[in-house]
Amino acid sequence: MADATGDQFTERFTLAEVLSIGTELALGQSLDTNAAWIAQRLAACGIRCRRHLTVPDEIELIRDALVTAGRAADVIVATGGLGPTADDLTRQALAEATGSTLIEDATALAQIREFFRRRGREMPERNRVQALRPECARIIENPCGTAPGVQLQLGRAQCFALPGVPSEMRAMFERDVAPRLRSVAGGSVIRSRILQTIGLPESELGARIADLMTRGRNPEVGTTAELGVIGVRINATADSPAAADSLLDEAEREIRGRLGDAVFGQDDDTLAAAVGRLLVKRGATVCTAESCTGGMIGAALTDVAGSSRYFRGAVVAYADELKTAALGVSPESLRRFGAVSEPVARAMAENARSRLHATYALAVTGIAGPTGGDAEKPVGLVYLALAGPRGTVVREHRFGEDSDRYAIRVRTVRAALAALRLELLHERTTG
Amino acid sequence: MADATGDQFTERFTLAEVLSIGTELALGQSLDTNAAWIAQRLAACGIRCRRHLTVPDEIELIRDALVTAGRAADVIVATGGLGPTADDLTRQALAEATGSTLIEDATALAQIREFFRRRGREMPERNRVQALRPECARIIENPCGTAPGVQLQLGRAQCFALPGVPSEMRAMFERDVAPRLRSVAGGSVIRSRILQTIGLPESELGARIADLMTRGRNPEVGTTAELGVIGVRINATADSPAAADSLLDEAEREIRGRLGDAVFGQDDDTLAAAVGRLLVKRGATVCTAESCTGGMIGAALTDVAGSSRYFRGAVVAYADELKTAALGVSPESLRRFGAVSEPVARAMAENARSRLHATYALAVTGIAGPTGGDAEKPVGLVYLALAGPRGTVVREHRFGEDSDRYAIRVRTVRAALAALRLELLHERTTG
Repeated sequence: MADATGDQFTERFTLAEVLSIGTELALGQSLDTNAAWIAQRLAACGIRCRRHLTVPDEIELIRDALVTAGRAADVIVATGGLGPTADDLTRQALAEATGSTLIEDATALAQIREFFRRRGREMPERNRVQALRPECARIIENPCGTAPGVQLQLGRAQCFALPGVPSEMRAMFERDVAPRLRSVAGGSVIRSRILQTIGLPESELGARIADLMTRGRNPEVGTTAELGVIGVRINATADSPAAADSLLDEAEREIRGRLGDAVFGQDDDTLAAAVGRLLVKRGATVCTAESCTGGMIGAALTDVAGSSRYFRGAVVAYADELKTAALGVSPESLRRFGAVSEPVARAMAENARSRLHATYALAVTGIAGPTGGDAEKPVGLVYLALAGPRGTVVREHRFGEDSDRYAIRVRTVRAALAALRLELLHERTTG
Repeated sequence: MADATGDQFTERFTLAEVLSIGTELALGQSLDTNAAWIAQRLAACGIRCRRHLTVPDEIELIRDALVTAGRAADVIVATGGLGPTADDLTRQALAEATGSTLIEDATALAQIREFFRRRGREMPERNRVQALRPECARIIENPCGTAPGVQLQLGRAQCFALPGVPSEMRAMFERDVAPRLRSVAGGSVIRSRILQTIGLPESELGARIADLMTRGRNPEVGTTAELGVIGVRINATADSPAAADSLLDEAEREIRGRLGDAVFGQDDDTLAAAVGRLLVKRGATVCTAESCTGGMIGAALTDVAGSSRYFRGAVVAYADELKTAALGVSPESLRRFGAVSEPVARAMAENARSRLHATYALAVTGIAGPTGGDAEKPVGLVYLALAGPRGTVVREHRFGEDSDRYAIRVRTVRAALAALRLELLHERTTG
């Protein structure tokens, strides 16, 4: 981490807390996407999000959360609880937290009436409550809904309360909150970059960059792993965006140097997109022959806009008889070695390559489970074949008897794309 | 909600807090799906989630969050920070929060070694740190990864710390945590059920059950829509699981009666699983011929364990020339009507059905975008053909010029599966 102690942390950053209000969020019935969005926008304004808290629609919990945040943070962004119904309690909780009374704001009331008028309707009487604000607060206009927000001083923090509807919250944040935050932020900005990797085990990757991950460094470096893909996250803090970017550039160069070919992309980049770029660069095409993945490799490749330039198509031969009929795998191979075997994967790849007229063919056959495995061929056993101009390579993978069907299939897709990527990288340097 | 005040709340429920640990979560760089999942599972165990808190990988913030939660909650479920790298600080924070020292757990170490051994590797020395636990803690075995969890008493709370990788966290929660929680939970329980629907627009669906969605009812009923699938959520509160279930059963009967065939499943059920059950019941098989979906329909069908009983395979003809070579679409049709057209969809379905020897064939051809559309054939235009024993039906869909590539493709997959489902339902009653 960039900061050795809580105190240094407090000194260097403007600190924010994000508060999400809603019983459906606390009970897990809706996924909160607002908090992550706000944290990212705060970082872009030079403000570091210290905590997110989610509470249900209960006045005591909302009030306590506000009071606690007002002691620890410079900025509070709260969402939710500003609707017209009885379980919308944020206005009341803000009044209690500040010892203020609720008054009706004439301008807000006029804006709400106008919102309905533009839609050819009278304002229902129950929406009138949305014009209430704590006496000490300022109204934040809502350009696309009936719930105005409020801004007020709460302890040491500037507190912004916005509606929970993402489109309204985002519009109000950009229009009203972000410009004010930029003047609050103390010069510092945080910029982030994620290097996406595949192929190095997490412990090996961690060992190669362990010194960069020690606490107190700037940029700070951390890793997250998910089904074969490991992201290396770099957060840089500096006085200006340009200075932060130059720290990121330097760290990126260092990390790329240590991790080599394992780094396939950056930020939201996907393995399929990385493979696609290499295929375009080489003017090459690809097709797939899939069994246990059922079409997932084709689906991943075509998730990328413009993939028609290099993706030819796929044959998904789930039934063994189609491995013969559609992919020309010999019945004898199937009988002798079984559908999940090196020779069958090889034949699938080579025949798909010639039948679908592609530069490369990826073929997979495996046991995704949960049933169908045995001691010799356990669940998770996958043969992955790559046929190309330099011949055919088949690799055996064991994605773990304990991984579930979903994880085994996702890992298989990623291993297939990673194999093609390495081949394309290698051909580029030797071909 | 069923409870008018915080005090009643406290008296009636066992209360939980969920703690998510990770800088990438606090900064909003990853979306936290664990917290919502855990809150739902807690509710199913009769435990109400009171708050979620997200903190970065900083020892002070993690420790303070743990200590505070230990004062207010009966149960704490923490995720993240148990990996092998330097920014994984949960073990240390738990030790500090309980005034305990970290010791190496021999059983945990053996399990980690065994994890690597089964994959044919030596345990890297780095992973040894994952065998540490606070002296007062019990190890929770991780059946599918190297990060064991721990359970310990923290203030008044039972605290369970689990890894952040969703598949590992979920497996450990179900295996170890949930059974223990059921014995902790007190009187009132909340039970939830979601009825999954497709085919009715949200406004029409909402109108049919508007009276059940009024506030203050028990069970409470709400809806959430996502790319063509609308979930109707029912939450029932009662003194016992049996009483809550009977409230749910009654509400479910009423809602199913009003929504008819639109209800395809319950809770985590998927459209592909619902289609699979109908295919098994009829002893029928299916294959697909895909263009713009690139294999996604096959991937969705084979996401279901046991799908080899009814899924034959797929031909993904992304390149037009493969629509002719692999699916026998006449070059004249392609020239005259274009690849995205009624006759081409029809030929793809009928030829796939006969070539892949399936009872039904689903074929899609469309423009997923973002480019490739024009005034006559806009982005989002999809032809969907279903060929079966009763003939072939082709439908034109327009999934909106404003939807993105991802949304258009997902809606296409769902429309295809929904069409097959309705055909199977209809055949069952008339055939």
